[in-house]
Amino acid sequence: MQQTRLDTERIRAARRSIDPLFLDSPLYRCETLDPELGCAVSVKLETANPVRSFKGRGTEVIASELAASGSRAAVCASAGNLGQALAWSGRGRGLDVTVVASRFAPVAKLDRIRAFGARLELVDGDFDQARDRASEIARRDGIRLVEDSLDLETCEGAATIGLELVESLAKTPFDTVLIALGGGAMATGIGHVMKDLAPGVEVICVQPLGAPAMTYSFHKRQVVTTDSTDTIADGVAGRRPIPAVLDDLLLVADDAVLVREESIIAGMRLLLGHAGLVVEPSAALGVAAILEDRDRFAGRNVVTVVCGSNVDVDAYHRWVG
Amino acid sequence: MQQTRLDTERIRAARRSIDPLFLDSPLYRCETLDPELGCAVSVKLETANPVRSFKGRGTEVIASELAASGSRAAVCASAGNLGQALAWSGRGRGLDVTVVASRFAPVAKLDRIRAFGARLELVDGDFDQARDRASEIARRDGIRLVEDSLDLETCEGAATIGLELVESLAKTPFDTVLIALGGGAMATGIGHVMKDLAPGVEVICVQPLGAPAMTYSFHKRQVVTTDSTDTIADGVAGRRPIPAVLDDLLLVADDAVLVREESIIAGMRLLLGHAGLVVEPSAALGVAAILEDRDRFAGRNVVTVVCGSNVDVDAYHRWVG
Repeated sequence: MQQTRLDTERIRAARRSIDPLFLDSPLYRCETLDPELGCAVSVKLETANPVRSFKGRGTEVIASELAASGSRAAVCASAGNLGQALAWSGRGRGLDVTVVASRFAPVAKLDRIRAFGARLELVDGDFDQARDRASEIARRDGIRLVEDSLDLETCEGAATIGLELVESLAKTPFDTVLIALGGGAMATGIGHVMKDLAPGVEVICVQPLGAPAMTYSFHKRQVVTTDSTDTIADGVAGRRPIPAVLDDLLLVADDAVLVREESIIAGMRLLLGHAGLVVEPSAALGVAAILEDRDRFAGRNVVTVVCGSNVDVDAYHRWVG
Repeated sequence: MQQTRLDTERIRAARRSIDPLFLDSPLYRCETLDPELGCAVSVKLETANPVRSFKGRGTEVIASELAASGSRAAVCASAGNLGQALAWSGRGRGLDVTVVASRFAPVAKLDRIRAFGARLELVDGDFDQARDRASEIARRDGIRLVEDSLDLETCEGAATIGLELVESLAKTPFDTVLIALGGGAMATGIGHVMKDLAPGVEVICVQPLGAPAMTYSFHKRQVVTTDSTDTIADGVAGRRPIPAVLDDLLLVADDAVLVREESIIAGMRLLLGHAGLVVEPSAALGVAAILEDRDRFAGRNVVTVVCGSNVDVDAYHRWVG
């Protein structure tokens, strides 16, 4: 394949700086989903760790590097999960972490960012406005700005999921992997590894119709921004794709699809009822994609990455009923 | 310690016949539970596998042995989780599996026993009546009767959880392990390993007040049976403790405590709200024990084994609200 910004040997090296708590997450068939979805579904469960999302893989790489280089502080913008993960990884290495988030982010995510010891600053806007504010803080204080998806470590951390998937292929074959698409760290990370080591597996990214910027950009092969987002999948709600990440995505993703809010909710409901999993909306995007195009997936062996479970219980009940 | 029926080297050997899908389950701190419970709580998560409970560890050992010896069939009584697990393990090895269960067992458990290809026979009584019926079938058909907790393999399988806990001690110390107590396979299995390899860890078994036979027996140091059970924790609702299992429990458990139904429900609610975990009632017994005796656990480092998530969604909603 053409060169992405990523390198499989670097990803293997990144794996060694990640706390094993985040590695080798469960991957297992959920047979009770099969009749509902018309295909064989396995989940790669990224919620059974102290920060309840896959983001710890990337923040472990970053915090290890910062600590090794003698840095004392970092700042990031976050929809909620990166902030928790950076707070957790930074705390363990004596780093001062500042997280900038939208005041509309789920309360549970914001509470846990504080609980892990980070300084939390809220902006009166969305994720992309938080990004701008995090940049300002980094410049003002002369500290590391952690930029999700742009910073290679965030992609390499997520890419370690891909290494684990490839390793599992010998025992439990699959032909398709469904990946939630937001900024693109997870999609380009896992996608890179699959295209490098298991090119026969189709890599399909899934984004909400209410936050479609990266998917539009993928199909147009150039950055398309949007003015606003409107989705319950707060974890993937960006408006301004990063050009370098799009370039990588174009090399490693076979497709990017958009799903409706009602499909995301139906996906959350199926994962609860048939797999006993409470997930945040972003983590149900893969199941939503199957629900919206059963013919495409009929009879296939699909892995969907269940990437986070940080959800406000009240909102969850309201959605799932 | 005095000799139990178990042997740590045999448990290590048993581990090698278990599908890795069931091994090295996640163990992680749930810090958001700390303020609620007044101690540091980690969960050992036994639900992220194809049968959503720890029982696969034991049935893998049994099914491996049966297949190696050329056996073609097995029968067990089950509250629901052992049956699913034996069905799953047996299917993979070409065994005909019959499961006898109470017709009052959760529908979700019964459905999945069938879905995994086992023959399901329902009795118009409780788990102990299912045990009697399974014995009859084994005698009639001349096939292996799998008896949970009595058969060493069921204890050895569960005991592999103990090996993993001991291995984790170097990195994440804990002083107490809370184990759901039903027939006693998990309590004697994990308890044996802890007493052998980490005797400083307190092993506390937890049973519902509505199904207290084994706990009464533990404190009286002789088998006490009860006439009925009354608990939502269907997975641990037995009336007739097995003498050999009680003998082992007396050697490896430091205590056995009883908890009220409302504490079990409160525990389920906390695990949902603060850890994002849907669990069956038996899996919330550990948290229930902390809730009922905060002073005892104050400031401790506690591991609770979240042993299953097979719950009817409607019943779950009714309980947890």
